[in-house]
Amino acid sequence: MSGRELHVISNGKSSLQHFADIAGQIHPYVTAFHIREKQMSAKELMVGVSFLKEKGIPLSKIVINDRVDVAAISRVSGVHLASHSLDAELIKQTFPYLRVGCSVHSLKEALSMEQKQVDYVFYGHIYETASKPGLPGRGLNELATITQKLQIPIIAIGGIKISNMNEVLTAGASGIAVMSGLLEAENPLEEVIRYRQLLK
Amino acid sequence: MSGRELHVISNGKSSLQHFADIAGQIHPYVTAFHIREKQMSAKELMVGVSFLKEKGIPLSKIVINDRVDVAAISRVSGVHLASHSLDAELIKQTFPYLRVGCSVHSLKEALSMEQKQVDYVFYGHIYETASKPGLPGRGLNELATITQKLQIPIIAIGGIKISNMNEVLTAGASGIAVMSGLLEAENPLEEVIRYRQLLK
Repeated sequence: MSGRELHVISNGKSSLQHFADIAGQIHPYVTAFHIREKQMSAKELMVGVSFLKEKGIPLSKIVINDRVDVAAISRVSGVHLASHSLDAELIKQTFPYLRVGCSVHSLKEALSMEQKQVDYVFYGHIYETASKPGLPGRGLNELATITQKLQIPIIAIGGIKISNMNEVLTAGASGIAVMSGLLEAENPLEEVIRYRQLLK
Repeated sequence: MSGRELHVISNGKSSLQHFADIAGQIHPYVTAFHIREKQMSAKELMVGVSFLKEKGIPLSKIVINDRVDVAAISRVSGVHLASHSLDAELIKQTFPYLRVGCSVHSLKEALSMEQKQVDYVFYGHIYETASKPGLPGRGLNELATITQKLQIPIIAIGGIKISNMNEVLTAGASGIAVMSGLLEAENPLEEVIRYRQLLK
C-alpha cells in the first residue's frame, strides 16, 4: 500500500468481534489496527487478536495498546504506548522486533519520545472529538511545528474527517488515526476508500 | 536459604514503598516478594521494582503479577498468573528465563497448569482470610490430594499463620504465601524468623 498511513483504533465501546468484522472489510486500505481496550485483561486481548487473524488481518497490521507482553506473545508487529506505559527505550532493548509508537500532546513530549527511539508518534487531538468531550482541539499550529522538527512519522489524531483531512496533511502529518470516523460509518468500505484517496 | 518456600505478597492497600520497607527488613528469610497490584500501570509497577531494589532485594526474589512485560523488562525472576493472564505455555516459549507460577483453586486447575509447564502453583485459600471476606476456606483435604498428584511445588495461601502452619505443611505444601501475616505484623522481622523456623 502506497501513500500516507491510516491507523484505525478500537473504541473501547463496541466488541472486538465487531471491530474485527469491520477490519475484515477495510484492511487492504489500512496501515494498522490498534486494539486499545484499557479495561481488558491480557487473555481478552489475545482473543481480540485471534478475531482479527480470523478475518484475514495480517499480524504486521496489528498493534496492541500498552501490553507489550501481549504484543510479543501474539507476534503482532507493534505496540502503542500511553504515558503510564513502559519506557520505550527499555522496550526497544528487550523487544527489538516491535514497532513502538506512542501518543504525545506537545512538541516537548514529541521530541522526548523521538529521543527514546520510538518509530512514530500520534499527536492530537487536532479537533474536538466525541472521545474527548468538552476539550477543544489543539489545532494545526503545533502539529506543523512538530512535523518540521521531528524525523519520525507524525500521525494526527482526533476528529479528523474527509472534510478536514487536507489541512492536516498540509501541516505535514504522515498519516491519520481514526476511531468513529470509520467504525461508525454507515458503509465503512466506501468510507475507507474515500480516506485512502485523500491519503495518496 | 534452605527449607520450604515463603512467599510474601503485596496487599494492594499499602504503598509499594511501605512494602519495600518491610521487604528490606525480612528478605533474608523470604523466597519471593510478589508485586500484586491489579490497579497499577506498568510504569507504577516498574517504580515498585525499583523500591525493592533500593532496599537490597535481589531481582531473583522479585515476582510480578500478571504483567509479563514488566517482569521481562525489569529483569526480575518471575511472573505470577491469574486466570485472566496470558497462557503459561506461550509465556514459557517467549520468555524461557522466567519462573512462571499461577494461582489455582482446584485439583483440576492444578493438573491443567502443571501440564502447561508452570514452575509452581499457589493453592488456596486454605482458611478464611480478611482478603476474601465471607468466603469459607477450602481446607486441607484438596491440598493434600494436590500435593500427592503433582510433581511441582504447591504453595498454600490464605489465612496461614504460625498456629496452623504445621498442618498445612503436613498436608504436603512446599511452602506458604502470606500477605497480612507479615505485612501487618507488629514486628515483621521477629515474625518472619518464627515463620522460617517452622518452614525448616
